[in-house]
Amino acid sequence: MHFSSKVTEVLGIKLPIIQAGMAGSTTPELVATVSNSGGLGTIGAGYFTANRLDSEITYVQELTDLPFAVNLFVPSEQLYVPENVEHMNAWLKPYRRALNLEEPVIDISEEQQFNEAINVVIEKGIPVVSFTFGIPKQSVIEKLKARQITLVGTATSVEEAIANESAGMDAVIAQGSEAGGHRGSFTVTSGDHTPLIGTMSLIPQVVDNVSIPVIAAGGIMDGRGIVASMVLGAEAVQMGTAFLTSEESGASTLYKNAIQHSKETDTVITNVFTGKPARGIDNEFIHKMDYYDDDIPDYPIQNQLTNGIRKAAAQKGNAQWTHLWSGQSPRLSQFVSASVLIDNIVKETRSILNK
Amino acid sequence: MHFSSKVTEVLGIKLPIIQAGMAGSTTPELVATVSNSGGLGTIGAGYFTANRLDSEITYVQELTDLPFAVNLFVPSEQLYVPENVEHMNAWLKPYRRALNLEEPVIDISEEQQFNEAINVVIEKGIPVVSFTFGIPKQSVIEKLKARQITLVGTATSVEEAIANESAGMDAVIAQGSEAGGHRGSFTVTSGDHTPLIGTMSLIPQVVDNVSIPVIAAGGIMDGRGIVASMVLGAEAVQMGTAFLTSEESGASTLYKNAIQHSKETDTVITNVFTGKPARGIDNEFIHKMDYYDDDIPDYPIQNQLTNGIRKAAAQKGNAQWTHLWSGQSPRLSQFVSASVLIDNIVKETRSILNK
Repeated sequence: MHFSSKVTEVLGIKLPIIQAGMAGSTTPELVATVSNSGGLGTIGAGYFTANRLDSEITYVQELTDLPFAVNLFVPSEQLYVPENVEHMNAWLKPYRRALNLEEPVIDISEEQQFNEAINVVIEKGIPVVSFTFGIPKQSVIEKLKARQITLVGTATSVEEAIANESAGMDAVIAQGSEAGGHRGSFTVTSGDHTPLIGTMSLIPQVVDNVSIPVIAAGGIMDGRGIVASMVLGAEAVQMGTAFLTSEESGASTLYKNAIQHSKETDTVITNVFTGKPARGIDNEFIHKMDYYDDDIPDYPIQNQLTNGIRKAAAQKGNAQWTHLWSGQSPRLSQFVSASVLIDNIVKETRSILNK
Repeated sequence: MHFSSKVTEVLGIKLPIIQAGMAGSTTPELVATVSNSGGLGTIGAGYFTANRLDSEITYVQELTDLPFAVNLFVPSEQLYVPENVEHMNAWLKPYRRALNLEEPVIDISEEQQFNEAINVVIEKGIPVVSFTFGIPKQSVIEKLKARQITLVGTATSVEEAIANESAGMDAVIAQGSEAGGHRGSFTVTSGDHTPLIGTMSLIPQVVDNVSIPVIAAGGIMDGRGIVASMVLGAEAVQMGTAFLTSEESGASTLYKNAIQHSKETDTVITNVFTGKPARGIDNEFIHKMDYYDDDIPDYPIQNQLTNGIRKAAAQKGNAQWTHLWSGQSPRLSQFVSASVLIDNIVKETRSILNK
């Protein structure tokens, strides 16, 4: 069995393996190690200011000469409702009190931060940019394409994949419901839900409906997942949780331990941490929010309201008050260097293909 | 690439393809056609009385000499709460009035019906019995095993798969969240949810934790899905929606049309039709039930309360008041004979393996 993969050529990599741009958990070491091992490392720049992104890129470029990507969050229309924020601040007061934290000042300059990040990416000569939460404006796409930057979108449904292709994306990540962390969805389906389509269903249906290369994501942790994804028609895979537990990841020991001790049934989809739906291990913070009787403020407002609490809790070793993003395959996690992980995957892939 | 499949030997079939026992939608023609084409047909006997099952088996045996299976629903503890049923009957009154229906008499002799079905299966020499909604009592398992009947359980999590193996099942169906129709779950996870693990995540984690053969289910519709499932470690697949739209299926034209015109994002998990969670195409009956302010009666009570409404609505061409079970891959549906479907799948599988 043999797979063609135009996408490795387009991305300038040897292996069809992309490390997901996990905002808050990627490190320059992780990104560089993945790229140096033949895959595509990705800086998770979703929460970065332009300055932070600039220095992060510089750092990665010191560690590798090979291509790596930057992942950005596409700004969306958010509603700032003062009473809504006030209500949430009141709800969060006991957490802040327990952790000795002040109420944060909300900054909704998402659009400006995004545009500045685009400029940084261009200045620093980044070859691949991936997007989450939607499709950037046509002017941004044209600006990046004029610099021969390869653009990768994210889709959680066939409709979103077609929208990515129409907008001029060079490839599209099809994110199955198994995936950990934020859902990349930017449409809602009937019944006000964002799409939650399993990878086994999503990949072939997306592949049949777009002509750009499809990158499979969601539940993929090893050689079995990679070969299965390519059998379904994907040309590469993107893996998040698999790299999150690697030695080079920025995830805390607390966080890695939580994944190591979790089962496939332990995650839920929740918007209580950031205002956008994401998959993570169920805990007390999520449970308590069941009793919250108002709308959760939109992203990025809720993200900023809870950010200090989550950071301080994690530092104090409290896994119940922080986000623990994880996909549905925690039992397949490996706790090794990202380079060993990739080696293991390559060996397993070869052994499956030679059977 | 080559796959070993002990399970085809155990089941006495040529192809690692099992037609799911879709209660209410299998016909003797469908079951026999699948078995005559080299797969394993399954009578969906979940709702059958012993008499109905007896005659259905006789009919299939006239159409094929090859092995086929019977799928049974394992009885569960249900709570008959009179006020609860009264409340639901009041809610359903407008539907019954519009369709000229009487209030049904509730029959909760599930256990007795199940035990009678077990006897029928033994008398008629059925070689394979599969179970949904749990594991039968040890006495039932021993009775069937004494007759060399092969037993196949259903699991939606690793824990449920291990329970099936421990109870003596010969193989286990791992049902991913993509699957249409009833969830086979018999445990609940934290937060009171039944497991909804995507097939890409579920299969390898189950395979790593049991030593009986694993049969993959959920989102599998074609050769790509079969090879992908076997790469993940499954030894066979079970397909429901793929056979539901076949010419031999008992699904109405209304129902098949609904699947043909649906998208991967159109299904939801709901317990409003039967009292047990199942995946189907979203419609008015499900939506309206959002405003119902009491618990839905347990299965099989709710199933009996809504059954007449669903049948009558379907007969009148009203797809909004009936269940439309479907998996998450409706775009991959084929509207051909089950034998042509299997032929297509075999050709596609060969072409993938020879690449």
